[in-house]
Formats: sequence, structure tokens, C-alpha cells
Amino acid sequence: MNRDRTTMAEIADAAGVSLPTVSKVWNGRADVSERTRRRVEELMRKHGYRGRTPRQESGLIDVVFSEIDCSWEGEHIRGLEAAAFEADVRIVVSSLDHGEASRRRLLQRLRSGHTDGVILATETATAPLVAALSRLNVPLAALDPVARHADMPFVHSANFAGARAATAHLLALGHRRIGLITGLDQLVCSQARRDGFFAAHDEAGVSPDLDLVERGDYNTPSGITAGGRLLDRHHPPTAIFAMNDGMAIGVYEAARRRGVTVPDQLSVVGFDDLPGARWASPPLTTVRQPLREMGALAVRTVLGHADGGMLGTELVVRESTSPPL
Amino acid sequence: MNRDRTTMAEIADAAGVSLPTVSKVWNGRADVSERTRRRVEELMRKHGYRGRTPRQESGLIDVVFSEIDCSWEGEHIRGLEAAAFEADVRIVVSSLDHGEASRRRLLQRLRSGHTDGVILATETATAPLVAALSRLNVPLAALDPVARHADMPFVHSANFAGARAATAHLLALGHRRIGLITGLDQLVCSQARRDGFFAAHDEAGVSPDLDLVERGDYNTPSGITAGGRLLDRHHPPTAIFAMNDGMAIGVYEAARRRGVTVPDQLSVVGFDDLPGARWASPPLTTVRQPLREMGALAVRTVLGHADGGMLGTELVVRESTSPPL
Repeated sequence: MNRDRTTMAEIADAAGVSLPTVSKVWNGRADVSERTRRRVEELMRKHGYRGRTPRQESGLIDVVFSEIDCSWEGEHIRGLEAAAFEADVRIVVSSLDHGEASRRRLLQRLRSGHTDGVILATETATAPLVAALSRLNVPLAALDPVARHADMPFVHSANFAGARAATAHLLALGHRRIGLITGLDQLVCSQARRDGFFAAHDEAGVSPDLDLVERGDYNTPSGITAGGRLLDRHHPPTAIFAMNDGMAIGVYEAARRRGVTVPDQLSVVGFDDLPGARWASPPLTTVRQPLREMGALAVRTVLGHADGGMLGTELVVRESTSPPL
Repeated sequence: MNRDRTTMAEIADAAGVSLPTVSKVWNGRADVSERTRRRVEELMRKHGYRGRTPRQESGLIDVVFSEIDCSWEGEHIRGLEAAAFEADVRIVVSSLDHGEASRRRLLQRLRSGHTDGVILATETATAPLVAALSRLNVPLAALDPVARHADMPFVHSANFAGARAATAHLLALGHRRIGLITGLDQLVCSQARRDGFFAAHDEAGVSPDLDLVERGDYNTPSGITAGGRLLDRHHPPTAIFAMNDGMAIGVYEAARRRGVTVPDQLSVVGFDDLPGARWASPPLTTVRQPLREMGALAVRTVLGHADGGMLGTELVVRESTSPPL
């Protein structure tokens, strides 16, 4: 097979599978066995299979979210848009929350050549999708990825250091019983934040109470539920670190429902510093994640002007934390 | 002059102005006298001047915001993206907050033919910009416009009815001294919400106290300031209607700083029903504006499947309102 002219049929022949199967792999569909997928992908890679469409500059960068649901996405879009303006490209915003069709459509249009790069800002970018994107010969970058995909530069922030600083702040105020509300376990950032929480305890020589760890999902209702569970303990914590602002705001509501005042009876710390944190009542102590700067770095990365990287986080002390009673 | 071949030089000749002046008008720049602009525009219209680039379908819709700053834009983007997915087009998101260059760049790229339509979701779309866009022969729609631009379909919501329902709710609870925090006066929606506030008073036979009207700008800090001014009155109001959720959240903070509890000592109503309203503590009574549906209708409008229109609003009663003490 000639590297420049490999066809899908030749890949199918070489792999000993049908043409539709090769097509499924190319399209990133999940209904192909892992073994077959790997075999077909290996052949595509070996033969430099690139599809049929020649590529030319479109002046467009595709940004793909799992869903567009909160100010987290809004803050990223702001940074992406500003960087795109600087670079004289436009950003196309889309989400993957339209089912299997989202993924198929994304691949189809990227393959048609109408994009200069793809920024994945999605925890639903499954391995088959990422593999399919990788074969498109389009620059890729990931924002806060689920996993560190081989060969894809990614942009993230200092999650470990941020969580450590947040927890150290509570320990320095004198708190010894600190509740933790975790986020989605599968995200790289969740693991780092959890590690930072425990590292701060270690450094302070304080044993964390594992009974004070509750699972959340980064949405506010889970913060209400988890916060409520912590406050209803026989020995409730005097402070709670929620792994994002949305859940911290949920803890406010759980406290209000129980007549517990923040910060007098309960200190609360979040993570992200979305606009809602500053305007929460009381203003929320949180870890600032530079979402706009991350978006801007992602644009520079797909344009080949940067290679991804980690940006710093910063503890922002507001009015939701005070020494324990 | 032949309608199909009119050049910029011919327009300049006919108008008795220089070529750069015609270029300025075409580019929507502000540094042209109003009289000259009108004269040049009239000639362009008369001769069907369309620039030099033939147009073809790009599969792209441009959405232009003033700035991308809060969950208001996020909610609209969600609706726009979903409708674009349905229609198999992509949305390009940009803002005008990069100075004069934003407007110039927008016009340049739209003129180059790489868009199938423009949705203006911006209060900074000045008359020269709108006039320049109108000449591009690209379908336009406005989301919640500053003014009702002639010949441009627009999408908005029942602002008058929503504000009337919010105010009637407070009156029905027994409130007689209701503070009003207004938004940006130049927006059509602001005028309608203000009118709705007074209409509800009229219908209830209650005289509104004009001393209880404070001006805000739709941002949270203005809600803190205006709310504080109202609460510091010798006879403070027992309820406050803020013309958006962001300012209502600011009123919460103004109340907290003064030891005033919501809703026991102060009822608060907002407008929009952004996600932050549901998760405020206490959950905010507000007027639901169907932002996602509005975004979707705007997409259908630029694609020629709808002609703009008004969508209904709905009062959502939560826990921030109760009878006065």
C-alpha cells in the first residue's frame, strides 16, 4: 500500500475485517470490539490513513464541551474568544450532549476540512473518539482532561497545590474536623484535589477523619445533599472543603436549612472562583482557577504557539471562613 | 450605474465624497458625519452595492455578544448550540469587547462570505454597525435588542408581563412599600420591565413610592449598592424587585451586611431565572426568561425558518418572598 493513497478498502483487507467495521473505527463508534479497533487503528497509523479530503486553512477552531451548562463553560469561552480574536481565528462552540449523533457529526465535519484545530473540553471524550480525532491530522488540545491522552497536549491548572492551600487555610484557622465533598472521580483534576486535601493534613500533622468524606458530582444539588449529610453527623465537621464552587454553594443551602450560619458555625471553601463565588452571600473563600487564561492557552496550543501546560491556582480568602467556635 | 456592477468608486463619485469615506461607511466606522453616512448609505441601497465577494453557504452562524461575561450568555449559547445542531450548522461565538477592531474584524470576515447569518446579542450594536451589517445581504436576527432595528427580526421575551407578575406577587403577599432596582435604561427590555412594575401597582390600586426606585446596571455590584441604599432609607421597603437575578443576588448581600434576613425581613424578586437563582440561599423567586428557547428561535430565524418573536415568561416562586412582618 502506498502511504499517500491508502484506501479504507485496503485497510479492511489488511485487517481482515469488513469495510463498515473500518468505517466504524474511523468514525469513533463504540460498537466495535476493543481488539478489532486496536488492530484497525494500528494499520491506519502504519499506513498514514488520512481519509479522502485535503485540508486547507479555515480560520476556525472547534471547541467541544460535554455540555454547555454553567458559568464554568462561560468563563472558558471568554478566554477562548479573546485568544481567538488575537490570533484572527473564529471559535466554533459545540457540545456532545446530543447523543451518539454528536460524535458522528463532529467527526464528519472535522473530516470535511472546515477546522484548523479542536479543543476538547469534555469529560465525555471517550477513547474511541479521541483515537478517531487523532487520525484526522488536525491539531488537538485538551482542557482539563479526564485522562492524559497520549500525544495530545493539554491545559490544566495547579489542582493539587490549590486544594492543599485551601485545606491548609482551614487548618491554620484551627479547624481539625474538616469535611471533604469530592467531585467526579474519573477526572484528573478530582484526584489531584483529593490528594491536595490529604497532603495538607499530613503536613500539619493532623489525621483526616475519613468518615467526613462525601461524594459529589460537581453539581449544586450534590453539594446540598453531601453538605446535609455532613451536618447531620453526630459529630459534624466545623469546616467543609467542596471540590468546586457549585457544590460549596450547595453547602450554604444545606446550612441555611439547618439554621447553621456561615462562617460563624461552619466555614466553607470552594474551588474555581466562578463569578458566583464572589457574589455569594457571604462571599465564598475559594481557589481561583484561571479559566480564561486556560482557554487562551488552549487556543495558542492548537495554533502551534504553545504546547499546553499548567497554570497556577490561588487561594482567595473571602468571608466564608473563620476560626471554629 | 449598473445594479450588478456598482463599485465603491462610483458610490464615492455619486455622493461627492472620497473613496476612504465610502469605505468608512461600508465598514460601519463611527468617524463619519451622520449626514454623510446617510447619504452614502442611501446611494448604496439605491444601487444595491454588495461589495465584491460572491456568497456561498458556509454552514456557520455568527453569534455576536457585547461581552461574554456571565451565565446569561452561557444559557443563550446552550440554546443556540442545540438549535444549530438540529439544523446541522455550526455557531461561531464572538464578542465586541475588543474595541473598534472588533467591529471592523466582524464586518471584514462577514463580507468574506464565511457566514450564513448573524445573530446580534449585544447592546453595543450601534446604528452604524447595524447599517453596515444590513448591507451585507446576510440574514440577521437580534436577541433582546437595544432598539427595534428596522427590517431586522428580533427575539425577545414577555418582559412587561413578567415584571407585572413579579410585582403582583409581592402586592398579593401584602407588600405596599416595594423597592425597584432598574437595569440599563437603553435596553428595550428594561423599559418593559419598569412599565410592568408600575402597571401592577395601578391594577392593585397601590401608589408606587417613586422614592424607592434605584438605578442599577444589571451587574451584581450595582445590586449591592442600590439594595444598600434602599435598606438604609429612613422607611426602607419591605420587598425589592431587582430587574435581573444578578442584582437580586446583590440585594441578598446588602441585606446580609445589615443583618436583614431574607425573606423574613425582606422579600426579594429577580428576573431571568439563571442557574444561580435556583441555587441561591434562600432560593430566589424570579421571572423565568426562556433564554435557551430564545437562542434556539434566533437560530431558526436567521436560517429563515422563523421570523423572530416573543416567548413567554413565567413567575417562579421560591423561598425569597413571604408576607411582610
